[in-house]
Amino acid sequence: MLIVQKFGGSSVANPERIKNVAKRVAKRSEKDQLVVVVSALGDTTDKLIELAHQITDLPSGREMDMLISTGEQISASLLSMALHGERKNAVSLCASQAQILTDSSYGKARIQEINTKRIEKELQKGNIVIVAGFQGVTEDEDVTTLGRGGSDLTAIALAAVLKAERCEIYTDVEGVFTADPRIVPSAKKLNSLIFDEMLEMASLGAGVMQTRAVEFAKKHGVCFEVRSSLTEAPGTIICKDKEVNDMEKLLVSGITTDPNEAKITVVGLSDQPGIAGKVFSALAEKDINVDMIIQSSAGEEKKNISFTVDKVDLRKALSVIETLRDQIEIGSVISDCDMAKVSVIGVGMMSQPGVAAKMFSCLADKGINIDMISTSEIKISCVIEKAKMEEAAVSLHSAFGLDK
Amino acid sequence: MLIVQKFGGSSVANPERIKNVAKRVAKRSEKDQLVVVVSALGDTTDKLIELAHQITDLPSGREMDMLISTGEQISASLLSMALHGERKNAVSLCASQAQILTDSSYGKARIQEINTKRIEKELQKGNIVIVAGFQGVTEDEDVTTLGRGGSDLTAIALAAVLKAERCEIYTDVEGVFTADPRIVPSAKKLNSLIFDEMLEMASLGAGVMQTRAVEFAKKHGVCFEVRSSLTEAPGTIICKDKEVNDMEKLLVSGITTDPNEAKITVVGLSDQPGIAGKVFSALAEKDINVDMIIQSSAGEEKKNISFTVDKVDLRKALSVIETLRDQIEIGSVISDCDMAKVSVIGVGMMSQPGVAAKMFSCLADKGINIDMISTSEIKISCVIEKAKMEEAAVSLHSAFGLDK
Repeated sequence: MLIVQKFGGSSVANPERIKNVAKRVAKRSEKDQLVVVVSALGDTTDKLIELAHQITDLPSGREMDMLISTGEQISASLLSMALHGERKNAVSLCASQAQILTDSSYGKARIQEINTKRIEKELQKGNIVIVAGFQGVTEDEDVTTLGRGGSDLTAIALAAVLKAERCEIYTDVEGVFTADPRIVPSAKKLNSLIFDEMLEMASLGAGVMQTRAVEFAKKHGVCFEVRSSLTEAPGTIICKDKEVNDMEKLLVSGITTDPNEAKITVVGLSDQPGIAGKVFSALAEKDINVDMIIQSSAGEEKKNISFTVDKVDLRKALSVIETLRDQIEIGSVISDCDMAKVSVIGVGMMSQPGVAAKMFSCLADKGINIDMISTSEIKISCVIEKAKMEEAAVSLHSAFGLDK
Repeated sequence: MLIVQKFGGSSVANPERIKNVAKRVAKRSEKDQLVVVVSALGDTTDKLIELAHQITDLPSGREMDMLISTGEQISASLLSMALHGERKNAVSLCASQAQILTDSSYGKARIQEINTKRIEKELQKGNIVIVAGFQGVTEDEDVTTLGRGGSDLTAIALAAVLKAERCEIYTDVEGVFTADPRIVPSAKKLNSLIFDEMLEMASLGAGVMQTRAVEFAKKHGVCFEVRSSLTEAPGTIICKDKEVNDMEKLLVSGITTDPNEAKITVVGLSDQPGIAGKVFSALAEKDINVDMIIQSSAGEEKKNISFTVDKVDLRKALSVIETLRDQIEIGSVISDCDMAKVSVIGVGMMSQPGVAAKMFSCLADKGINIDMISTSEIKISCVIEKAKMEEAAVSLHSAFGLDK
């Protein structure tokens, strides 16, 4: 069987850990053919970025990718050496050798094609193939990177094109949990999830995997497992459909929390078509991601718009809105950066009205005020006061029976 | 004019120095088209090698080259960023992008071809082209390195194929000196040298440049200048012929010293053809470089062979000789690791018998015993007691009028 494995930066943070990964990979290679994707050693990428910023404030994307892609080349060659130390045949490949072709959006390149000829040749020679994660090359041979967490995407994409039996994402946690164990101590490891649930988990702060990698897995139907590189315990399997014995399980599979919400309310906009569009276009132009949006009438042909942004973008967002005063009528602007988002995730829960009701009454029982609500096929999110985030998560976790 | 410049590891040891190099390159780029070759930052290569040895005792050559080639990719991208900071167009290229094709002798690969298409395209676009030194790629796209000091070779080879007007090797010394200034304080910078003289200077411990790079320059007639990256002072120009005003100069252009000589004498070999061949083949098989060789009759169909090796190879050489006792008759083996070599370098000096005589009598005047002598078209070397090396160098430097 052909298996793609991916080991993250903490799994290969130093020579000792690289040797441990090599032992694990060596043992597995006796049973399966392996393609192993690695991230850079520990904080190498951050150190390289810091070096660049010592040189210039605004390094070009092309040169930045040339620079930081060296991190994965280093870990790939070291892991290959460690496998030789275990008397296994192994070869490391950087993105140009592995022919991972991308567009030229430096820093967030998209994979366009993977020519698997070289990888397949090395597998046929009996090699364990170590691929430097996170990187690609353009058709002009310029080096690109796939964005933070891009090694996950490398692994999922390789599993797809190589038609691997499975893709295993090794990390420093045991799998995906019903909630962040640092916030909800009774959180439990999930045995399985479907792609959509994992997408919400990843994008709402579970922080286990790059969202783009999960989207790619969903699109190409790549089943993968998130598991620990430190233990032999099974992890969480993410597939198109849940396993049968999970079908009868609770609708809600997890609670996620995000303490970095900031809310902005623009008061007294004139109630004409196109006004909201102007506000959000201006924010988008400055690359500010808007999360929830609520619009309400303020009487007398006026309306208020409230929305949330990531806390780090608050100041930028406020100054964007100030610049709009020339074009549109704006009353006051109110902001609050002490907000948090708590979400309940689960497939098909929107067809079960009980879920939303249970969530709202659970929060009400604890005296937690809900500021904003948004819903989708797969989640219900509430923006609440940040100080109450932990209490909300713990209560919801228990209310939806996830403690058991 | 197209100029190839090379900056060594100490010139790009930290962000501050990289920015200084960028300022220098930026200024020059207003006058000339530039291809700039860089070494790795300071001791990066050594640190990467250490990392590899923490993983395994005998890392494979392929993976080692994959690992250490990242050092030059890092410095190339950083220098390119620094040039952008100086508002210049620049692009960094690693060996696979610059198409520096080599054989697959990892760690000491030989350049076979350079396809200049990409470099020329970037020059035409108005870019300063920064090339990662020291590295190449095989036709299978595997990364190779050119051996210690290989960035010099990259620069000279690029100057040759690009038909550059000149190649400038920037280092932390002002040029090539008549002797090592740490040993002979009155040493003077030379204005010019011919290739053969530079070859002797490089191989006999002047330590300024990789010998293979000088050989390549000689073979392809690439005129180059060794100069300081810290000052604007002209350096030493190395060409096929000396400049006219230097033609009348002294024959002797420099004194070199090498304190790392070890001498081995194998006593009582039988005086038959092929015996010496066996000794030196066995040493060559273990990659031990033998420098001087002297053979003398010891009477009764016996002979003694003395030779010198680098001090670090002494132990290995002695054990090789012990293994030969099964095949050939060997008397005793005597070794001395406290030897040094002092050499007088100069074109055409062998046709001037006075040079040798002056050298020997100068050493004799100081009571320095000559243990071994070797001569070539361009140098006379004497092996002497290591404790007398400095005195010998200073005396010879003065005797040949190099102090003036």
